[in-house]
Amino acid sequence: MTYCVGLMVDEGMVLLSDTRTNAGLDNIATYKKMFVFEDPGKRVIVILTAGSLSTTQTVIAKLTEAIDDPEATQETSFMLAPSLLQSVEIIGSMLSETTVEINEKLTRMNQSAAASFIVAGQRVGGDPRLFLVYPEGNFIEATHDTPFLQIGEHKYGKPILDRVIQRSTSLDDARKAALLSMDSTLRSNLSVGMPLDLAVIKNGACKVNQYQRIDAGDPEFTKLSDAWSNALRDSFAAIST
Amino acid sequence: MTYCVGLMVDEGMVLLSDTRTNAGLDNIATYKKMFVFEDPGKRVIVILTAGSLSTTQTVIAKLTEAIDDPEATQETSFMLAPSLLQSVEIIGSMLSETTVEINEKLTRMNQSAAASFIVAGQRVGGDPRLFLVYPEGNFIEATHDTPFLQIGEHKYGKPILDRVIQRSTSLDDARKAALLSMDSTLRSNLSVGMPLDLAVIKNGACKVNQYQRIDAGDPEFTKLSDAWSNALRDSFAAIST
Repeated sequence: MTYCVGLMVDEGMVLLSDTRTNAGLDNIATYKKMFVFEDPGKRVIVILTAGSLSTTQTVIAKLTEAIDDPEATQETSFMLAPSLLQSVEIIGSMLSETTVEINEKLTRMNQSAAASFIVAGQRVGGDPRLFLVYPEGNFIEATHDTPFLQIGEHKYGKPILDRVIQRSTSLDDARKAALLSMDSTLRSNLSVGMPLDLAVIKNGACKVNQYQRIDAGDPEFTKLSDAWSNALRDSFAAIST
Repeated sequence: MTYCVGLMVDEGMVLLSDTRTNAGLDNIATYKKMFVFEDPGKRVIVILTAGSLSTTQTVIAKLTEAIDDPEATQETSFMLAPSLLQSVEIIGSMLSETTVEINEKLTRMNQSAAASFIVAGQRVGGDPRLFLVYPEGNFIEATHDTPFLQIGEHKYGKPILDRVIQRSTSLDDARKAALLSMDSTLRSNLSVGMPLDLAVIKNGACKVNQYQRIDAGDPEFTKLSDAWSNALRDSFAAIST
């Protein structure tokens, strides 16, 4: 499994993903699930992936090929599309086509090629936008009412986000909440694992302002995780029934 | 869906269940999912149910019929069985048989009759025991290492239990943790709903020492829920990245 989360607040966006993939519990590997595409100052798009690794790798490879193609057009390269909405449409179509293609091979084996993406980005002159793209290629967008989107093993890490994230939350607090949401998931589900990839995009920057690979034993993450554990235990002890 | 949790600590056991059932989002109803069987001071068994309502109702009805049968034996009535293990075997067999029977009717409709139980109990002279019974009738038991069992929508409420529950936790704290675990689940998943049923069984009492129906707006639960929300927000604000 996987856990990826994208948060959108007034100051910008925070994206966080784990790196564990598994084909059975005895076949575990580390794969990056965060893909950054940027033309700094002009356009930034970050894609987080969950689901069948063969599908997500193929989609990312094909999308990258389309961007690098010297004959790329607004219709084929999501880095040239005139709006973020059109970019996410290109990504969604590629996901849908690839899923159908791989599914045909897999149905004989009773396996699924389903995958889903979180797509976050901004182009100069446009608003920052955050989307969740479904295996069928359709998508939903984060709004003021629902300022975060999750894919993969999302349930363990949802309660903390439900309680603290609003559109007015600061970017630093959004980053902290994403890390704590991941921490709860890591503790409760073995199929989500370190290292983590974190990206912070400030509103209007049109580039990734902070990109960080967080390894197991990372001092900041360990400190945060311990502090949160202690705070939860202290709070639990302090409140009375 | 459903959320039921059973906790076993040195001082005793805490059982908590919600009451929401739904056949689609537009067909919601309230059904008790906690069933108490007691011969006070001699034997107590509490069953919590999750899954297909037609299966769980039929199983509980048949088990009750077997107990009330004037010709009930140690083999047919789980209230007469010579050990808790044999009681849970009777319950498991009934669940398995009923599931198979109802499944036959449902496969044509592509629906599932699967259901699972938490069974907690103690008989005089024996140890308190806590089991999770699977749809197939097999079961696992809570141990010192894993002092709680959950059925239904278990993920949202697991992080808090993972952090605070140990075998040495007091019975009051176990009760508080069960309620907070339910509170997180209620906030994040619409298919789990009030009122709640709570039972506390002290070690050696062989009866339910506290049984409580907690309705929406219950002052104690509301106070606990608010205090926990505030504590989480304060803790979140206090810790630094």
